[in-house]
Amino acid sequence: MKKIAVFTSGGDAPGMNACIRAVVRTAVYHNIRVFGIERGLNGMIDDNFVEMQTHSVSNIIQRGGTVLKTSRSKSFLTKEGRRKAYENLVAYGIDGLVAIGGDGTYTAMDVFTKEYDIPVIGAPGTIDNDLYGTDNTIGFDTAVNTALDAIDKIRDTADSNDRIFFVEVMGRDAGFIAMDVGIGGGAEAILIPERHTQLDELVNTLRSGWGRHKGSQLIVVAEGEDAGGVFELAEKIKSQIPTFEYRITVLGHIQRGGKPSARDRVLASRLGSAAVDGLLHGKKGVAAGVVNNAIVFTPFNEAIKKNKPITEGLVQLAKVLST
Amino acid sequence: MKKIAVFTSGGDAPGMNACIRAVVRTAVYHNIRVFGIERGLNGMIDDNFVEMQTHSVSNIIQRGGTVLKTSRSKSFLTKEGRRKAYENLVAYGIDGLVAIGGDGTYTAMDVFTKEYDIPVIGAPGTIDNDLYGTDNTIGFDTAVNTALDAIDKIRDTADSNDRIFFVEVMGRDAGFIAMDVGIGGGAEAILIPERHTQLDELVNTLRSGWGRHKGSQLIVVAEGEDAGGVFELAEKIKSQIPTFEYRITVLGHIQRGGKPSARDRVLASRLGSAAVDGLLHGKKGVAAGVVNNAIVFTPFNEAIKKNKPITEGLVQLAKVLST
Amino acid sequence: MKKIAVFTSGGDAPGMNACIRAVVRTAVYHNIRVFGIERGLNGMIDDNFVEMQTHSVSNIIQRGGTVLKTSRSKSFLTKEGRRKAYENLVAYGIDGLVAIGGDGTYTAMDVFTKEYDIPVIGAPGTIDNDLYGTDNTIGFDTAVNTALDAIDKIRDTADSNDRIFFVEVMGRDAGFIAMDVGIGGGAEAILIPERHTQLDELVNTLRSGWGRHKGSQLIVVAEGEDAGGVFELAEKIKSQIPTFEYRITVLGHIQRGGKPSARDRVLASRLGSAAVDGLLHGKKGVAAGVVNNAIVFTPFNEAIKKNKPITEGLVQLAKVLST
Amino acid sequence: MKKIAVFTSGGDAPGMNACIRAVVRTAVYHNIRVFGIERGLNGMIDDNFVEMQTHSVSNIIQRGGTVLKTSRSKSFLTKEGRRKAYENLVAYGIDGLVAIGGDGTYTAMDVFTKEYDIPVIGAPGTIDNDLYGTDNTIGFDTAVNTALDAIDKIRDTADSNDRIFFVEVMGRDAGFIAMDVGIGGGAEAILIPERHTQLDELVNTLRSGWGRHKGSQLIVVAEGEDAGGVFELAEKIKSQIPTFEYRITVLGHIQRGGKPSARDRVLASRLGSAAVDGLLHGKKGVAAGVVNNAIVFTPFNEAIKKNKPITEGLVQLAKVLST
Repeated sequence: MKKIAVFTSGGDAPGMNACIRAVVRTAVYHNIRVFGIERGLNGMIDDNFVEMQTHSVSNIIQRGGTVLKTSRSKSFLTKEGRRKAYENLVAYGIDGLVAIGGDGTYTAMDVFTKEYDIPVIGAPGTIDNDLYGTDNTIGFDTAVNTALDAIDKIRDTADSNDRIFFVEVMGRDAGFIAMDVGIGGGAEAILIPERHTQLDELVNTLRSGWGRHKGSQLIVVAEGEDAGGVFELAEKIKSQIPTFEYRITVLGHIQRGGKPSARDRVLASRLGSAAVDGLLHGKKGVAAGVVNNAIVFTPFNEAIKKNKPITEGLVQLAKVLST
Repeated sequence: MKKIAVFTSGGDAPGMNACIRAVVRTAVYHNIRVFGIERGLNGMIDDNFVEMQTHSVSNIIQRGGTVLKTSRSKSFLTKEGRRKAYENLVAYGIDGLVAIGGDGTYTAMDVFTKEYDIPVIGAPGTIDNDLYGTDNTIGFDTAVNTALDAIDKIRDTADSNDRIFFVEVMGRDAGFIAMDVGIGGGAEAILIPERHTQLDELVNTLRSGWGRHKGSQLIVVAEGEDAGGVFELAEKIKSQIPTFEYRITVLGHIQRGGKPSARDRVLASRLGSAAVDGLLHGKKGVAAGVVNNAIVFTPFNEAIKKNKPITEGLVQLAKVLST
Repeated sequence: MKKIAVFTSGGDAPGMNACIRAVVRTAVYHNIRVFGIERGLNGMIDDNFVEMQTHSVSNIIQRGGTVLKTSRSKSFLTKEGRRKAYENLVAYGIDGLVAIGGDGTYTAMDVFTKEYDIPVIGAPGTIDNDLYGTDNTIGFDTAVNTALDAIDKIRDTADSNDRIFFVEVMGRDAGFIAMDVGIGGGAEAILIPERHTQLDELVNTLRSGWGRHKGSQLIVVAEGEDAGGVFELAEKIKSQIPTFEYRITVLGHIQRGGKPSARDRVLASRLGSAAVDGLLHGKKGVAAGVVNNAIVFTPFNEAIKKNKPITEGLVQLAKVLST
Repeated sequence: MKKIAVFTSGGDAPGMNACIRAVVRTAVYHNIRVFGIERGLNGMIDDNFVEMQTHSVSNIIQRGGTVLKTSRSKSFLTKEGRRKAYENLVAYGIDGLVAIGGDGTYTAMDVFTKEYDIPVIGAPGTIDNDLYGTDNTIGFDTAVNTALDAIDKIRDTADSNDRIFFVEVMGRDAGFIAMDVGIGGGAEAILIPERHTQLDELVNTLRSGWGRHKGSQLIVVAEGEDAGGVFELAEKIKSQIPTFEYRITVLGHIQRGGKPSARDRVLASRLGSAAVDGLLHGKKGVAAGVVNNAIVFTPFNEAIKKNKPITEGLVQLAKVLST
């Protein structure tokens, strides 16, 4: 292995820069030349390669976003796009690739590595934590802390006004963020895609809170919850309790940005370095992850398809603690 | 003066607790008994008075929200409500009142003090900064920093994806938050209620940004902007530039909560203490403020009605710096 | 089990409040009465018991420190002290105890439960992470993030001035904080108690940094490092490189305080709840922990005595990434 | 005016980057070419000039430190050094200079502009706030918030242990930081260079706190306090109260770094822009400042020599509120 390339793809996640840095420095440490591909898979097709050195990644470990930029590439979904991408890799003499991204990126790499014989190792860069083969994805911990910080602020105003708040957090397919934020924020209820939202149960929770003179109540709702989303949900409750008053906050894109947390920086550093080590040891078509505090490699199609469940006991814990 | 009472009213603002603390401790320092009225003007009517001591306000200076809770009182808008409120004040022997709140609170106190002979001094507790007679209101600096922190995060993701973001910040009638956040966040454009939104100008700004290969662009929009709000605005632009892609984030209630900033704590402490001093010196029907770093008192009706303009030069500065 | 008590002891750690809350609410959920013992083991001896309800722990999940206060008790080291403590527990009818603390607390409980027949379950509340039987202790993640935030600030000024900084972080016996902070902060070197500090190696690292025109360099030093502490260490280097200029920052007590991180809140909630569940299931003389994301119970003497090593590979990773 | 240069000098301060950005963009807006001089006055002597464009200052407004780096220059104190510096300015055709820094920088510029006919305008970049001619210096607000955040954390642990803490904050010659931090942090006492430290008074304060069963007590001490510094001070008290136990934290360099606050970004933006405007309007040998929310220019020697007092009333306020 003489030359590798690294790119970030899909939704950006805090810690991607720490991961890029680890890839670059580990490569340099092993005397491998390393190229950054800008704007993800689009850049691979459009020939946006730039060689990187140790100092190219100085002082980025603490920055949100990704210095290599990212994109969701439609061209790469076409055979023609992938062919051009591969030709560029060949032209640069790239003999190993590190792909930092989530579900979509892994899927693209799964297809790509079946079509072309190029060693690729993935690193799980996504705030959603919905990838099998790693206990946590890069960016998840930061996103949870960002959302929790917002929830703490909302609790301040909810308490001061004895108000009910619905707070929507990210998570179209997975309730990981909602669950941790809900427990950490002391939410009265947490709605996640993994569980069918039971409106009656929620109404009872709210009524019981009033019965016990709870001033404020806070419902954390993951995007992918199945009652139709936070606005519709609130209206459904109002139709059952006409006097029901509430506020809604959609946290949105703030959850993607910001300084990565310590945990995300360490995780990203470990995984970026492990990805290069993996390439050096002949691995390919796999994603690096940390499971039970040890580095593991999981084939792309497993990482995408296998189910990663919410930690056992958390649903019940949330219920007990909001008593 | 032997007994005073203090309450918070209207929208909560970070620093209200620091102000309550200053009122209580300054009263205690002067051997005046002090009562907290819970839930604002509703509590004054409903007899929610509780005597406070030095230790009642221990360890609250750093907390968001208000330990006395707040409300927007409809009853106080009625003669009957105000009569009951006054009777309660008399029953407790209250001979001075400190009212912490914004526009609505000052208006209520203006009416109240014209009807009843009770000395009242206001302290400007509102994130909106839209009160005449003080350079800054309590909570404004914190709200600006909270919004700016969110904007920094959004910039991370906007930059990583070369995206255009509209970010709505609080400010129904005033652009103070939007202006400081916009300049501090390096926004490409800032839309405020004080200035008519010129769509053509905005479209030109965006186009010029693209022309200069700006990756991301960020438009900060105050709630009270006059083009119909952030969603309608974005659609209007899209109708002019069909390829226009954008994201919208509404910061919402997070701007109200959180730890008060240093500046808000110091300001709140000065004003709470000044309000008590003012009562002791026979002032009434006025609001305490800090203008040019000195304590001043302004009659309630002036504080409400006089216009407080955006700092001169900031509109032009924003334009120059987004070049 | 009808009545349990909970206390915090030893050095305070962020998340202790979240843990107390979980203990109280889980007890209430199971219709068990619950008492808080104030000021740790001293309070157990001095009869500082107070009954707690659901609302006693409202709005504390996000607060640093411990609402029950803590202490390091000398009296409890005596047979007489422990006897009085036990008598108080009996007097209140306490039939189960949750002890939130670190090394010293577990040691005390190990002795206590051998002398007296009272079921005790520990929860690992200490920022040091030096307890066997749990992957992370409560407070560790927050302390790491606090220290990292400080390091990021120091890096700003170090970079602006091309300076060398030594930063001392907590960790008398363990390098967990130093290691995560060092990797997360991109430190040029990390000195920990687990490894003998090799001065020559450190001098070479610094020289090599200058050789590669590194502007700033940052050495993270755990308290328990074996070259004599951060001040002596710096002087030893200066004696080898007379022109050596440096700055030292000792982070100190700020690492104990502050809002707990999301991870610490969730961990503390799980462990507090698990401790009560454990008591209900007849467990005693053990500490609750989370290992590989599952709840486990470890006898006190194992939790204290068994060695918990630094994650494999991190020492090498730190070296590679500071290349 | 066709070409200007900008540099940062002396201790770095958060907001310097926002100021550099404003200088560069305002110059570009007026079609003036602009050079950055790296490493302050040393760079002016050593010919470290680099031309800057709009995009050179993209995405730096939120960063601590200074992208141009800074230094304290001994060479510039010599006639020879200043001559070389001037020759470089002439060689680049620089006809205007913006100097961002504190006391030392202004003093250097005062000397320089008397020796050489080059228009220089200063911008007050220092966390100490000890410059006349501006209500606040760039970096002061951020430093206060950073220190206050640390104090909040220390209060958490102090409260949990009923401890007395001495916290040293920056301020060798001025108590601005200590005063705001002390009031904002609810300190029991605040010691500043502007007031003689009265040991007896401090001892009485502490004793009175114990008398009123205050759990924790917190003394904020500016570096320049006149009782010999925080360590000596604590020992002096212990010699009067032998049972006295305390902890000391020296906040140190963390106060310099970090993201600038909203206020510092807006201030820095205004002043950087005003400095260029001032050059365009023929001003020289003056420092830009904001007094009572309006831009003013003050001759360098006044800015250095005139006294800027602590806001009236704050000393008394601190006393009243720690009652």
